[in-house]
Amino acid sequence: MHLIPVSQDFCVAINDPEDAVFVNGKFCKDPKLAKAQDFYYSGLNIPRNTSNPVGSTVTPVNVAQIPGLNTLGISLVRIDYAPNGGLNPPHTHPRATEILVVVEGTLYVGFVTSNTDNRLITKVLYPGDVFVFPIGLIHFQFNVGKTNAVAFAALSSQNPGVITVANAVFGSNPPINPDVLVKAFQLDKNVVKNLQSKFWWANN
Amino acid sequence: MHLIPVSQDFCVAINDPEDAVFVNGKFCKDPKLAKAQDFYYSGLNIPRNTSNPVGSTVTPVNVAQIPGLNTLGISLVRIDYAPNGGLNPPHTHPRATEILVVVEGTLYVGFVTSNTDNRLITKVLYPGDVFVFPIGLIHFQFNVGKTNAVAFAALSSQNPGVITVANAVFGSNPPINPDVLVKAFQLDKNVVKNLQSKFWWANN
Amino acid sequence: MHLIPVSQDFCVAINDPEDAVFVNGKFCKDPKLAKAQDFYYSGLNIPRNTSNPVGSTVTPVNVAQIPGLNTLGISLVRIDYAPNGGLNPPHTHPRATEILVVVEGTLYVGFVTSNTDNRLITKVLYPGDVFVFPIGLIHFQFNVGKTNAVAFAALSSQNPGVITVANAVFGSNPPINPDVLVKAFQLDKNVVKNLQSKFWWANN
Amino acid sequence: MHLIPVSQDFCVAINDPEDAVFVNGKFCKDPKLAKAQDFYYSGLNIPRNTSNPVGSTVTPVNVAQIPGLNTLGISLVRIDYAPNGGLNPPHTHPRATEILVVVEGTLYVGFVTSNTDNRLITKVLYPGDVFVFPIGLIHFQFNVGKTNAVAFAALSSQNPGVITVANAVFGSNPPINPDVLVKAFQLDKNVVKNLQSKFWWANN
Amino acid sequence: MHLIPVSQDFCVAINDPEDAVFVNGKFCKDPKLAKAQDFYYSGLNIPRNTSNPVGSTVTPVNVAQIPGLNTLGISLVRIDYAPNGGLNPPHTHPRATEILVVVEGTLYVGFVTSNTDNRLITKVLYPGDVFVFPIGLIHFQFNVGKTNAVAFAALSSQNPGVITVANAVFGSNPPINPDVLVKAFQLDKNVVKNLQSKFWWANN
Amino acid sequence: MHLIPVSQDFCVAINDPEDAVFVNGKFCKDPKLAKAQDFYYSGLNIPRNTSNPVGSTVTPVNVAQIPGLNTLGISLVRIDYAPNGGLNPPHTHPRATEILVVVEGTLYVGFVTSNTDNRLITKVLYPGDVFVFPIGLIHFQFNVGKTNAVAFAALSSQNPGVITVANAVFGSNPPINPDVLVKAFQLDKNVVKNLQSKFWWANN
Repeated sequence: MHLIPVSQDFCVAINDPEDAVFVNGKFCKDPKLAKAQDFYYSGLNIPRNTSNPVGSTVTPVNVAQIPGLNTLGISLVRIDYAPNGGLNPPHTHPRATEILVVVEGTLYVGFVTSNTDNRLITKVLYPGDVFVFPIGLIHFQFNVGKTNAVAFAALSSQNPGVITVANAVFGSNPPINPDVLVKAFQLDKNVVKNLQSKFWWANN
Repeated sequence: MHLIPVSQDFCVAINDPEDAVFVNGKFCKDPKLAKAQDFYYSGLNIPRNTSNPVGSTVTPVNVAQIPGLNTLGISLVRIDYAPNGGLNPPHTHPRATEILVVVEGTLYVGFVTSNTDNRLITKVLYPGDVFVFPIGLIHFQFNVGKTNAVAFAALSSQNPGVITVANAVFGSNPPINPDVLVKAFQLDKNVVKNLQSKFWWANN
Repeated sequence: MHLIPVSQDFCVAINDPEDAVFVNGKFCKDPKLAKAQDFYYSGLNIPRNTSNPVGSTVTPVNVAQIPGLNTLGISLVRIDYAPNGGLNPPHTHPRATEILVVVEGTLYVGFVTSNTDNRLITKVLYPGDVFVFPIGLIHFQFNVGKTNAVAFAALSSQNPGVITVANAVFGSNPPINPDVLVKAFQLDKNVVKNLQSKFWWANN
Repeated sequence: MHLIPVSQDFCVAINDPEDAVFVNGKFCKDPKLAKAQDFYYSGLNIPRNTSNPVGSTVTPVNVAQIPGLNTLGISLVRIDYAPNGGLNPPHTHPRATEILVVVEGTLYVGFVTSNTDNRLITKVLYPGDVFVFPIGLIHFQFNVGKTNAVAFAALSSQNPGVITVANAVFGSNPPINPDVLVKAFQLDKNVVKNLQSKFWWANN
Repeated sequence: MHLIPVSQDFCVAINDPEDAVFVNGKFCKDPKLAKAQDFYYSGLNIPRNTSNPVGSTVTPVNVAQIPGLNTLGISLVRIDYAPNGGLNPPHTHPRATEILVVVEGTLYVGFVTSNTDNRLITKVLYPGDVFVFPIGLIHFQFNVGKTNAVAFAALSSQNPGVITVANAVFGSNPPINPDVLVKAFQLDKNVVKNLQSKFWWANN
Repeated sequence: MHLIPVSQDFCVAINDPEDAVFVNGKFCKDPKLAKAQDFYYSGLNIPRNTSNPVGSTVTPVNVAQIPGLNTLGISLVRIDYAPNGGLNPPHTHPRATEILVVVEGTLYVGFVTSNTDNRLITKVLYPGDVFVFPIGLIHFQFNVGKTNAVAFAALSSQNPGVITVANAVFGSNPPINPDVLVKAFQLDKNVVKNLQSKFWWANN
């Protein structure tokens, strides 16, 4: 398999080809018109509201917020966790490894290896601690402290994607045939239907 | 980010460096000793036993079975499904897209897009039908016919990895803190503990 | 060398930018409009006519048949071989490794390593047997049985390309200067011209 | 050009092959022995001493500190800047794009595009502001505030490399022929020799 | 991180999408219209004028000169050096390794490793000598002979980019805040301002 | 598919792990021991003997000659062509695009696109002319002048590989079953056997 090589210093994403320069087969903003604003975002110092069912909020800073990140393969998030159990629930990033640094609070974090042994690797993290979640593996962070927790995390993609397991499985639109989930999770059909109604709400 | 380029026609994997030639900084079997057997596997015509809780069996043919696949970025599987509900349960491949062709039977298949909209895309497949499951997304196949079903699937990695969602989440070793799963899946703690005991069994 | 990273779950290919959403510098179908049909193909169960000079037919299932394969790096083919000598003649895939499984019949298959030693590696394959042809190397399959043969093969590119050696060398349009082929193949000039007239017909 | 695909969930770096499992032609720590410690680092909350000629200190967290980052393509740094002119001097990362978030203080930051126009793109950043430095371009951060400044930055490589322009040019070991630098920088030979003696000290 | 795979034999760059065929999400010239001219450049045998402050001239042959190089990851340059000190001054290629062959003359060449040890690796080259400058590292060539020198160099990108250190640092547009350069280079402010005025002229 | 990222400035290839430093899971020469010699080759100015059946000689400068090229994705060759028909016969590079510059003489060069149309794209080249042969496609150069010809060519791999079509097809070791070649090339069996005996000699 061959892969397409980059051919410019950067390629600021644009939504309207009218404003674009057509360079080497791709539309990017004319590099001569790129400005500091294209590489900039502000507000990551502001605590987020965590009043939601899982008690956490992820603030993304990826190519959707910073168009200059296009093609550059990295992005950031700020994560706020409510005290006493704020949870960034089990999820995967299909296109990125994550490295997280705790700024405030106490987090129990972990990831699970793939089917060879489905091994759980966990750690309790304090401010200044750093942890790595390898690409594609299911992972989570859980606030086990009595105060707010805050972390910054970097991801090895300008648009890493997120698949929250519970939402994708029980809250897809339309719902997955309940018989599939009954067998896969060895749950009673009523429990499955109840879960689907809860997560359907969450996503719609 | 730079990436390491391949520097040989192939690099047959070996387990014992004693038998290896050290070429360009990597251990591979001496290419002059590579033989047909290194690129070969037999037995994919044999129906597999599907008497297990999910009613399906995946027979992998990847670098663990064919050492010559090392570094080449592709592999195969045969999947057998029991009649009336044999299920290859929701899972992801962290390192591969999958393309599947149905050889026998009737399969309801689907995948769920990432969190932007968690959209479920499904199709009922008959013999000769082909379907694609994009890399990293949760997907499944379900035998909705009254006979056995058989499919071949190719994956874009010599070792694609598999993460079966239910096993990784409820059957990890050691188990995930139940409070995490109670909140993530909005399930009663007893249900979570019961699931963990079931899947613990499955994995151990 | 840097390479362009993917920034979406998938990027369904479209031919008319009018129907496209312009995302991160590339035209893809609006992901919200992607449907099962974009990831689907049918008919790979149907035996193909092999009444042609080489006695084989390749039915491709790549990005030209399944637009959802775009950017995903994998594809399939079905190959039908006539009894007693149906041949998929020596060819290369410039962008893919191939892994083949025999469904029916008996195939003598092989590939040749590059100039270091031009070693031929062969095997006779029966139903259920799997064989690997590493990227870029010349390979072939030959039906040495008395019945039809059928194989499925997967390739590590959504558009692997095929270069059939005899057709590219003797049947190019326009033809290669015969003096080049006389010297390269150490053939009589009349033999070269005769070959060029035969393969010219094949390609035109 | 082909590239070597990853074939495991992760590949924890080790220094002594005696402790290694030889998997698919590469030495990594036996994945079954990987533990949380391999993915962990602590102490990024501690302010660093910035009493040095440039008034800044970079604390790296890459594969040298976290062996589990090996092959995963991402890393972090903490940067401390002295008040009133602490400077992370002009440098490049040959293998990574950088995304930086200001935690404390006020930074004047910038990067210079390549020779097409050598355009300087700058911004003054405050706490919570984020800025991107595209791979390979010369960039710097300068504390223009009266207090300490602190930033976290992520880099798209597990070992991004740093080339501080002044040190590499004037402080290399052994020194570059002064005639080269006289002509390149259009400086007097005595100035060049004086710079080389200063930076020689810095590096040795 | 995933990367976008190539899906054609080549993709000749075009500037006007009106002439393009829209294939697999990218604009390229219709491959059937590609002609020899798209892969061709002439004139690399002509000696260049080296009457400029550094006494060297680089003649590039990349995707800007040969549109057929688009996506193919390689390019060439011819470099002419004036006698007695013609200099290709310290610079980096952010997207390419360089391999150079001397055709005429005597060159003192070198590169500096990254900050681990900023080691200078040099060699005096004569006609027929070949040297490698690894991607992203600062390097230079200096004519230490009494005659013209000429070299060909190949770069591992169709658009490698060049960052001439002195021009980017002292000649950016607009200029870098002189206080940054005073501290980074430990130079007197007047020297910095004088350099900035010289290189400003060079770039504008 | 994920790919392995580079994690050093360079990785000089070594043959004996005893001399190696084990860094980040790979064996390379200890970077601190790397010296100019590891990046150097001499003698590309020397005309080569072209007294052989095809009348051309390729002098490679790749990772086998320059161990410092390991992982860097580029290499060079010098090609000498005898007057009046010296031929670099039809061949492919499975891992590289080639860009060639003529230094002396007159070359008729060409490449053939893949099976979509097997189109031949040719050009007659004179000193200073440059031509591109896209990765994986069959190409050749033919001296149509009355003097020696010389070219330098760069390839986008540190070990591009070469597959000379006639040698691989008719001269493999052991030979391909003649029935395969009779059908593939539509040649008489005696012609095939005669060719195999000639090329067998060439390779052995």
